[in-house]
Amino acid sequence: MEKNKSLEAFFTEGYKRFRDGISIDCAIFGFHKEKLHVLLSKNIIITRWALPGGFVLKEENLEQAAKRITTERTGMDELFFRQFKTFGEPNRNIQKDLFDYNKFAEIAGFDVPQNTWMTQQSISIGYYAVSNLSESQPQIDIFNSECKWFPIDEIPSLGFDHEEILSEALHTLKIHLYHYPIGQTLLPDKFTLKEIKNLYEILSGKHLHASNFPNKLIGLGLIEKTEEKRNIGAHRAPTFYKFNQEVYEQMLKEGFVLV
Amino acid sequence: MEKNKSLEAFFTEGYKRFRDGISIDCAIFGFHKEKLHVLLSKNIIITRWALPGGFVLKEENLEQAAKRITTERTGMDELFFRQFKTFGEPNRNIQKDLFDYNKFAEIAGFDVPQNTWMTQQSISIGYYAVSNLSESQPQIDIFNSECKWFPIDEIPSLGFDHEEILSEALHTLKIHLYHYPIGQTLLPDKFTLKEIKNLYEILSGKHLHASNFPNKLIGLGLIEKTEEKRNIGAHRAPTFYKFNQEVYEQMLKEGFVLV
Repeated sequence: MEKNKSLEAFFTEGYKRFRDGISIDCAIFGFHKEKLHVLLSKNIIITRWALPGGFVLKEENLEQAAKRITTERTGMDELFFRQFKTFGEPNRNIQKDLFDYNKFAEIAGFDVPQNTWMTQQSISIGYYAVSNLSESQPQIDIFNSECKWFPIDEIPSLGFDHEEILSEALHTLKIHLYHYPIGQTLLPDKFTLKEIKNLYEILSGKHLHASNFPNKLIGLGLIEKTEEKRNIGAHRAPTFYKFNQEVYEQMLKEGFVLV
Repeated sequence: MEKNKSLEAFFTEGYKRFRDGISIDCAIFGFHKEKLHVLLSKNIIITRWALPGGFVLKEENLEQAAKRITTERTGMDELFFRQFKTFGEPNRNIQKDLFDYNKFAEIAGFDVPQNTWMTQQSISIGYYAVSNLSESQPQIDIFNSECKWFPIDEIPSLGFDHEEILSEALHTLKIHLYHYPIGQTLLPDKFTLKEIKNLYEILSGKHLHASNFPNKLIGLGLIEKTEEKRNIGAHRAPTFYKFNQEVYEQMLKEGFVLV
């Protein structure tokens, strides 16, 4: 097997470019066929599925790193994303007993290096993102053999502490629905009230009263009527709504309370 | 000036006990005379007020460290607390231009050491806590000359990036009111609906409809009627309520949606 030089360089030289002891893990959510999905990549070091992640360049702040990583992995640069929690169990970093040494050497063409910046104690900062799945182009990085979307009810067993990270991401997403304008990046420019209600039902995992979320979003000025209607039958032409961009930008910064 | 040996040892030997590149900063909130207060300590290195903070022992996880730090600084061990955000601007750590070298040398009896684990790039994990101010006994640590409560509308200019950290803590607290049982550690065991409403008004910074929060908390089963009434006049005897401990513990873990 030919040696994977870029992977080896990452282990031995990465500390020159990246900040030590910190990684970023991203729970990237999307929609497909009325189901919430999450993007996973198959890690060649532990040969298991995991959340996409990466490291922070020395000159970057955490948000810039998270944005770069989610964009690299989805091919999209207009995602809604938020930091949700930092994970720092003393033994959470890459553990020797997680490694399949033989498998790694077979894929990488070199043995797992010991005592590098990559194998020291580290904490991970969790970001979640909400994206339009249909426009995404999932990309592997040098640590992955595959990268693809999984329906939220068909998630395989995850490596590292990523089951906990995903669970916390979902918990935060469900709270943030009531405080940040999460829907916009998932809906088309114009949508009916039924469409936005369905979206919030899927995101919240709850059956909602028909006018619950939509009316509250209208009350805030976040979504507003357009002149257009969707023509779906002789006597049925629901009005299209759209996000008010100015209110959206403000709510993104300041948040709101949807009660 | 006699050399402060424990402070010097912290700079030069601390890396043996503490995790590198991570600190914890705590926004500890309390109540006094119907006003929200925050605990600040005066840092002798930068000679400015700042949020109390500390470092993570090698064997601790982040929550254990935050709990130890808040307990050490308040003298109380039953606080409601939550992680809210991690701060990691590349230049956010102790900067040379922040130091008042002369003042430091005067207080500490030695010059500020250069290039130690303390003066490298670091990130800070923010926790907020909600405490019963009247039971607290604020304590300084080796980095502080004073530690005391400030009303939220009389906060002095803060050192490091702590104005941003405090602002984010307040923002998160106001969101969490709708999702976690934050009131319990601030109220007496038994309280009237008016008392809990006042508390939520102060915490949220909003004028609330008389039955808004309290009725929703009753609906969740989180607070419940007792047999007792407060006798405040001939025809006025409001019923005492208390938290249901079982529901409280569950809500603390799982959260709720107060809508």
